[in-house]
Amino acid sequence: MSTPRRRRVTAQDVADLAGVSRNAVSRAFNGGYRLRSSTVDRIMEAADQLGWRPNTAARAIKGSPAHTIGFILRREPDLLGADPFFPLFLAGLERVLSEQAYALTIRFVSDETEEELCYRDWRAERSVDAFIVADLRDADPRFALLDELGASAIVIGDPPPGVEIPAVFHDSDDSIRHALDGWIARGHIRIGHVMGDPALEHARRRRDIWAGVLERHGLRSDLLAVGGFTESGAEDATREILAVDEPPTAVFYANDVMAAAGMRTIAEAGLRVGEQVAVFGFDGIPLAPYLSPPLATIACDYVELGEIAGRMLLAGLEAETVGPVRRTLPARFVQRASYGIGPQR
Amino acid sequence: MSTPRRRRVTAQDVADLAGVSRNAVSRAFNGGYRLRSSTVDRIMEAADQLGWRPNTAARAIKGSPAHTIGFILRREPDLLGADPFFPLFLAGLERVLSEQAYALTIRFVSDETEEELCYRDWRAERSVDAFIVADLRDADPRFALLDELGASAIVIGDPPPGVEIPAVFHDSDDSIRHALDGWIARGHIRIGHVMGDPALEHARRRRDIWAGVLERHGLRSDLLAVGGFTESGAEDATREILAVDEPPTAVFYANDVMAAAGMRTIAEAGLRVGEQVAVFGFDGIPLAPYLSPPLATIACDYVELGEIAGRMLLAGLEAETVGPVRRTLPARFVQRASYGIGPQR
Repeated sequence: MSTPRRRRVTAQDVADLAGVSRNAVSRAFNGGYRLRSSTVDRIMEAADQLGWRPNTAARAIKGSPAHTIGFILRREPDLLGADPFFPLFLAGLERVLSEQAYALTIRFVSDETEEELCYRDWRAERSVDAFIVADLRDADPRFALLDELGASAIVIGDPPPGVEIPAVFHDSDDSIRHALDGWIARGHIRIGHVMGDPALEHARRRRDIWAGVLERHGLRSDLLAVGGFTESGAEDATREILAVDEPPTAVFYANDVMAAAGMRTIAEAGLRVGEQVAVFGFDGIPLAPYLSPPLATIACDYVELGEIAGRMLLAGLEAETVGPVRRTLPARFVQRASYGIGPQR
Repeated sequence: MSTPRRRRVTAQDVADLAGVSRNAVSRAFNGGYRLRSSTVDRIMEAADQLGWRPNTAARAIKGSPAHTIGFILRREPDLLGADPFFPLFLAGLERVLSEQAYALTIRFVSDETEEELCYRDWRAERSVDAFIVADLRDADPRFALLDELGASAIVIGDPPPGVEIPAVFHDSDDSIRHALDGWIARGHIRIGHVMGDPALEHARRRRDIWAGVLERHGLRSDLLAVGGFTESGAEDATREILAVDEPPTAVFYANDVMAAAGMRTIAEAGLRVGEQVAVFGFDGIPLAPYLSPPLATIACDYVELGEIAGRMLLAGLEAETVGPVRRTLPARFVQRASYGIGPQR
C-alpha cells in the first residue's frame, strides 16, 4: 500500500519476477512440495519484493487446516484379499500419522473418472492436506492432476522422469537379478515370467528386469505370460508357458499370490515344483513358508514402507522448503525349497 | 416462551417425563441409535410437550456435520498381513460410504488407553458421525464408552446381551457344526481345536461351538491349544496337541492362516494332512485352494459384510428412529482335500 501501483499484484507477477510458473508460486506457498529449496527461496523473495501473499496459501502454510492425509485407491476387491501391501502399508503409515495427530482418510474408486473427481473434490474442500499416490500406472494422469491442483503428495513407487513429487519404494531390481543369476548359474536356460497387470509400473519393471537378465546371458525371453496379479490369471499364464515346445524349468512370478496358484498348476500338470520347475515370487507374504514347497520370494517390508512414507509426507508438510526426494528400501531375496537346485528334467 | 416457567427446561426434564435416561434423550436426538422406535417416539412427544430441543442435537440430526465414519482398530501389524477380513471389509464398506459421499477415517491404536482417547477425541471434535466397532473383546469397554458418548455405531460381531447397538456378523455356528458332525460321522473321535486369541469374542465362540459338538456326541474336548491367530502360534499349538497320548486325527483351526501353518507342522511331524490328520480352517482366504493339500474352510464374504455394515450405518444416521438391529450373513463350509475321508491312522 505504501508503493502506488497501477493494479493489484497477482501470483502471475510473482511468477514472472521469480522466473517460474504460476503453479510453482502456489506450491511454494503450499508447503514447497516438488520445488527445489532454492526455487522456493526465489519465489519467496519475489513475493516479498512485490508485497504479495495469497490468502488461501497463507492459511495453508501455518498449521494444515485439515490435518488429514488422503489415500485414493483404484483397486478391485479381489486384488485386496491376498495382497499384503495394502493392510501392512496402511498400518505403518497410520502409526506415523497418528503420532502427529494426522488422520488418514481412505477412498476406493472404481475408475479413472471417479478417481480424478475425488482428487479434485478433496482438494477443493481442503479436506486433506496431502495425498498418498500408489499403484503407479502407465502414463499416469495423476502427476499432471496433482500439479494442476498444486497439491502435496507422496508417491509409493518410482515416478517417471520429470515428476518432482517425493517418492519412496522398494528397490528390488538387484534382488531379482541375484535370484535369476543364481538360476542361470545352476544351469537353467529356459526361465519364464508370469507378469502382473501390464498397466502397473511395478509389473512392467519386474518384467523388464527379468528380460534384461536373460538378454545379458544370451538367453531368449520368450516365456512371458500375463497373470495380472490374480490367482486365476496365474493359472492360465502358467498353463500357457508350460504348453510351449521348450517349456520353462524355472518361473519367476510377479507376486506371491500368483506363485502360489502357479505352483499348484505346475503340480497339476504332473511336474514337481522345486525339482522339475523352480519358482520364486515377490512380496514375502506371511504364508510363503507354509506353501508346499515353501515359496522362495523377494520380500518387502511394507510396514516400514508405510512408516517412511508417513514421515516423508509429514516432513514435507511441516517444512516449508523440501525438494523432490527419492528414497528406496531394499527388498530381500529369501531362498526356500521352491527355488530348487537346478534343472532336473 | 409463551408459557411462563420457573426455570429453563432441561434434557433431564424430558428424560423424566418420557421415563428414560438422560443419555437416551441425547441419543434420540442424535439419530435414534440403540433405541426402540417406540422409545424414540415417547421421547420426541415428551420434548414436544415441554417445548424442548437441544442445540447440538438439532445440529447433528439434520445432515451430519462431518459426513465421516471412524474406524479405530487395535491390531498388531502381524495380524494384518495375512488376514483377509480387514482389506476386504474395508473395500465393501468404503464402496457404500462413498456412494453417499461419506468419508472413512481409519486409526490404528496400540492399546486400550489410546483407543479410548481416540473415541473421545473424535466424538468431542465431532470429526466423525459414527463408529465401526470390530474385533469384539471380552468385557469390551467400548459399549459403555459409546453409551457414555451417546455415539452412533455399528458393531461387526455379536455383541453381548443388553448392548443395543446395531450389529452385523457372519453366523458360522451351523457351518462349523456341520463340518465337525461330518468328521464324527466319518469316524473321527479325537478332534482338536487350535483357538484364536482368547480375548476376542469370535475366537471364544468358535471354541465353544467345537466343544459343544464334541460334548453332544459324548467325545472329550481336551485337544485344545491356543494359536492366537498367528502362524507361529499355530505351529506351537499344533505340536502341543500332536504330542499327547491320544493325538487328534482331525483339527479345526480358528482361521486359515493358522490352518496353513498347522498343515505344514503336521507334515513336518511325518503325518499326511487329509489322510492321517484332517484339517479345516476359517475365513476362506483366496490362497486356500492353492495350499497343499487344498484347505477346507468356513468361508465368509467380507466384502459383503462391509457393504451391509455401511448400509446399516447410513440407514441409522439418516433415519431418525432405528431400533437395535442384528443382522447375520451365512458362512459357508467349503470342502476340500484337507478335510479328508475319515481317520486313516
